[in-house]
Amino acid sequence: MPKRWLTSMMARCEGMDLLIDCGEGTQIAMKEKGWSPKPIDIICFTHYHADHISGLPGLLLSMGNAEKTSPLILVGPKGLQKVVGALRVIAPELPFELKFYELSEDREQLKLGPYVIDAYRVNHNIPCYGYALSIPRKGEFNRFRAQELGIPLRFWNRLQHGQTMTDEETGVTYTPDMVMGEDRRGIKVVYCTDTRPVPVIAEYAADADLMICEGMYGEEDKEAKARGYKHMTMQESARLAAQAQPRELWFTHYSPSMVNPKQYMDEILKIFPRARAAKDGWSRDIGYEDRQQD
Amino acid sequence: MPKRWLTSMMARCEGMDLLIDCGEGTQIAMKEKGWSPKPIDIICFTHYHADHISGLPGLLLSMGNAEKTSPLILVGPKGLQKVVGALRVIAPELPFELKFYELSEDREQLKLGPYVIDAYRVNHNIPCYGYALSIPRKGEFNRFRAQELGIPLRFWNRLQHGQTMTDEETGVTYTPDMVMGEDRRGIKVVYCTDTRPVPVIAEYAADADLMICEGMYGEEDKEAKARGYKHMTMQESARLAAQAQPRELWFTHYSPSMVNPKQYMDEILKIFPRARAAKDGWSRDIGYEDRQQD
Repeated sequence: MPKRWLTSMMARCEGMDLLIDCGEGTQIAMKEKGWSPKPIDIICFTHYHADHISGLPGLLLSMGNAEKTSPLILVGPKGLQKVVGALRVIAPELPFELKFYELSEDREQLKLGPYVIDAYRVNHNIPCYGYALSIPRKGEFNRFRAQELGIPLRFWNRLQHGQTMTDEETGVTYTPDMVMGEDRRGIKVVYCTDTRPVPVIAEYAADADLMICEGMYGEEDKEAKARGYKHMTMQESARLAAQAQPRELWFTHYSPSMVNPKQYMDEILKIFPRARAAKDGWSRDIGYEDRQQD
Repeated sequence: MPKRWLTSMMARCEGMDLLIDCGEGTQIAMKEKGWSPKPIDIICFTHYHADHISGLPGLLLSMGNAEKTSPLILVGPKGLQKVVGALRVIAPELPFELKFYELSEDREQLKLGPYVIDAYRVNHNIPCYGYALSIPRKGEFNRFRAQELGIPLRFWNRLQHGQTMTDEETGVTYTPDMVMGEDRRGIKVVYCTDTRPVPVIAEYAADADLMICEGMYGEEDKEAKARGYKHMTMQESARLAAQAQPRELWFTHYSPSMVNPKQYMDEILKIFPRARAAKDGWSRDIGYEDRQQD
């Protein structure tokens, strides 16, 4: 729509960008943010309705024009390679490789670059997945414990990076768990649209920094309609958030008939007080909780 | 690009809309004009590069959502059915029929509704056509001549509409040419992008009301680049217009690197004085010359 782009999300971490969904115009929305398509290394698709994937051929060509040469990993429900292959009829030549990861189980986990990507099947009228993106964080290195155990200084760094080290002179082996504390809270963002409210959504959103969730309709009495089209009302999303307790809930994927999503927020805040009606171009820097950048 | 849509053109005549090309976002540009996709009955494609067709699946779905049920005629170079079939993987169900007209000759003419559509092959790096849209206009009915010939009044209207009539009482046959003057000047709009300058462009643009033509580059010294990518500079388009003498020339299809197309116009106007650097959303009402609406 004029002044309202289709729903998608971009994560940027350690120079490796990850996009979820790419409808018509997503690449323009990205340019409006001042973001290049070149560093995108991963694109995840929730499902293959046109509003979530029709912008792919144009984006692929723009990535080519931006001289991307590193491989692009595509993740999505079964049929990914067939759907992308069909769309590439208008983007046949690209200067980078496409790698396909097709989801087939109800829950799958991938580790790519800094991201742990959890894909979980939701309930739409065609196969559809939600995504939880996590940046895990190791425990703290305990230097006092390392000294106490007499671990040679030259092993400390590698132990911090998860390697087991053996001192060839003494034959003694040191494992990371000897010196590393419990894993600390990392970062988690969940993204979920085009579904009925199912418990798995709340499960993956538990304690997330940011839960991005559809708010297709704002009126409670549109629940029947939402049920018919397999979408969620803002109330339904908010109730999932109330269970999951993310630090913040952003609504997106509004019905074209919804002119002002904010008008429903008074009622929504009673269900979940940290809900916000997101708008085009919203972004948020999220750091580890003891070093928040935002 | 932000604030610059891809090139396309819509003609609207007698409730039957005709679109030429449909890149990513064309349907939004259309909405910004306040135009519905529902009355579109014909879409012509110049060629199958993504910037000219990637918006099709989304547009088809929007036409379906607008409850279009009448057939949609698609016109384009060979491969049309294959390309559209591939793109429909993300728009499989539509409440209207698609009809395909694949161009195979260098010049082809179709008559659809009020339009005479001339498609002519141009010179790009894949098969590409320009289009001339004409609304022909019959000659004037000569009532004095009809009276002189004693043609019964009841035949006049049908003779004006091109039918031959026979008076069953007298056995006399009347033909339209007895009472109709020479065809009058109708309306002609030509649209041509993604090509080197070839004579056929000027031929079809002769005496057009409006010639819409690519102005990929504005600097004369980019002609070598234009030659390499099989595009045209503004100068080359203007020289074609100088031959064809359309009433007006509009440039479009600017290179993304061109920030301000107007800056080249002083020089261009020396080649063809009725040239204009068109911008997003430009439209023009064109009537028969003795009843101009604009």
